[in-house]
Amino acid sequence: MVMANVLTLARRPRGVPVPADFAIERRMLDCPADGFVVAILYASIDPAMRTWISGEDTYRQPVAIGEAMPALAIGRVISSRTRAFPPGALVRGAFGIASHAASCGEQVTLLPPMAIDALPHHLGVLGISGLSAWFGLVDCGALQPGDRVLVSGAGGAVGSAAMQIAQIAGAEVVGVAGGAEKCTWAMERFGAPVLDYRGGDLAGTMRSALPGGADLVFDNVGGVFLEAALDHLAEGARIVVCGGISQYGSAERHGPSNYLNLVVRRASMRGFLVHDFAPRFPDAVRRLARWHQEGRLVGIVDIERGLENFSGALAGLFSGTNRGKRLLALNPELL
Amino acid sequence: MVMANVLTLARRPRGVPVPADFAIERRMLDCPADGFVVAILYASIDPAMRTWISGEDTYRQPVAIGEAMPALAIGRVISSRTRAFPPGALVRGAFGIASHAASCGEQVTLLPPMAIDALPHHLGVLGISGLSAWFGLVDCGALQPGDRVLVSGAGGAVGSAAMQIAQIAGAEVVGVAGGAEKCTWAMERFGAPVLDYRGGDLAGTMRSALPGGADLVFDNVGGVFLEAALDHLAEGARIVVCGGISQYGSAERHGPSNYLNLVVRRASMRGFLVHDFAPRFPDAVRRLARWHQEGRLVGIVDIERGLENFSGALAGLFSGTNRGKRLLALNPELL
Repeated sequence: MVMANVLTLARRPRGVPVPADFAIERRMLDCPADGFVVAILYASIDPAMRTWISGEDTYRQPVAIGEAMPALAIGRVISSRTRAFPPGALVRGAFGIASHAASCGEQVTLLPPMAIDALPHHLGVLGISGLSAWFGLVDCGALQPGDRVLVSGAGGAVGSAAMQIAQIAGAEVVGVAGGAEKCTWAMERFGAPVLDYRGGDLAGTMRSALPGGADLVFDNVGGVFLEAALDHLAEGARIVVCGGISQYGSAERHGPSNYLNLVVRRASMRGFLVHDFAPRFPDAVRRLARWHQEGRLVGIVDIERGLENFSGALAGLFSGTNRGKRLLALNPELL
Repeated sequence: MVMANVLTLARRPRGVPVPADFAIERRMLDCPADGFVVAILYASIDPAMRTWISGEDTYRQPVAIGEAMPALAIGRVISSRTRAFPPGALVRGAFGIASHAASCGEQVTLLPPMAIDALPHHLGVLGISGLSAWFGLVDCGALQPGDRVLVSGAGGAVGSAAMQIAQIAGAEVVGVAGGAEKCTWAMERFGAPVLDYRGGDLAGTMRSALPGGADLVFDNVGGVFLEAALDHLAEGARIVVCGGISQYGSAERHGPSNYLNLVVRRASMRGFLVHDFAPRFPDAVRRLARWHQEGRLVGIVDIERGLENFSGALAGLFSGTNRGKRLLALNPELL
């Protein structure tokens, strides 16, 4: 029996989440027969969480009021009734935002033993963020060497992976991010232009950075970025829509008013969900891990601490305070 | 020397075109060396004309003030200095909205001799309208037998061709058009459900007509239709954007606010310009002509008469007064 602190949804947020939208409950956890209890070390903080708690119909059931907040997380098994996940093992699964979780092992990945400071990357560049960038660019976007690629949210978890993967693949890459300071930081990290969508005249800076237009657009943001990108497509351009953080949780949603440029430019816009590629995750991780080991694909992580800081950590994704993959560290005594 | 009446752009229309936006000029035409003069019999009236005269940047140069109004047309050669296009020959080319035109034969198609009442179809179901439906559905939309297909503008030139081609290809087809009377007319023509987007609850009628969602959406309209379609996609659906008549000439343009359904449904939205498929037109026309001859692909034409009625004929496309392909008949004494 373990006493767990579990973050639950107290009410549906209006706009940006605030602490009062959530509660922390203490729950007694039993180790399930053929299962285990895990102490969570890092939980993944994702923009999509904002849509899960909004009550709208998406690709998953909305989180109900009073329900534990779901999240992908990495932890260490502390008690077990199954040989598949022995005590001490590092595991990744949908354990939620909590100090501890009980699991029967369903959709849980056993991670190899590793140094503690390598763990965060298995929720970032070697986890769903890196995989989203990989399958979005390569499969949905049919990325080719020499493509002129435009990446939104270039300073975020998926965008920073997309910037680097496109470079590794021989593409000419231009990023877009929010705020001069973040853009400077990102330009130094990636050695590529990163345009500030808050700086005004995004259309003009896009024209200067990619005079011939974009062959491939990887978008996590929507809004102002997507409209500017639609005005700056090369013939036959492909837009890959991974998400649209500017639209999540906003009462009034805006579609790209210039979507008919898809006709003029003979272009396409395609959405995808990375989980559809799950059977191919091991092969993709093998590739990403090699570049990661070689130092060509750098994992950028941004770590907040403690259950009580969840709403702020999530809200920060929408104001853009994060640099790379945002995680919530829990059980610091185990790190 | 022939005296021609030529319709020119007098000013840029605001909203729906009115007669005063155009002028009729008399111009003396010489027969060019190695060219010919054609008496125009039918000119094609197309929604895209509204964008050509708006001054905006599209896939072609905007029509300048004072410039002759471009249009695809069919006519009969009345004087010639080339054996390729002898007097009496039927020809199709970008002759414009005019009584007569001089041509050097560039991008002009020599049509076989045919009965006069077969001519209009060579601007409709056997012309660009039918070809737009064909390449949009088959190439861009990867139409497969059994696909659940949603077609907007089902009573229009391209939509009516798309309805029939999709049926011939073994698809389950549902159309959408504007107004109860037009929908009833279209349902009788096609033997398929045609929903009224002006009738309210388009989402509900879509759900009833295609309970599992649409695999393929062929859109010429945008606006309310496109939003409803995006809310009604089957997994992996393809949206083919051929045009967006609801957006042409409107001061305020609206993108689909629910475009992120592309992500949730793993769907794509692709634009195309039929002219890119020009090398394959003869093969496509051969297929369409066979079905046309068999009576399986019916050409529906809607003929207005006289240069002075051009603006009304064009405006009617936006209020939806047309049934099928709208043409302007000229030189009635030659018909």
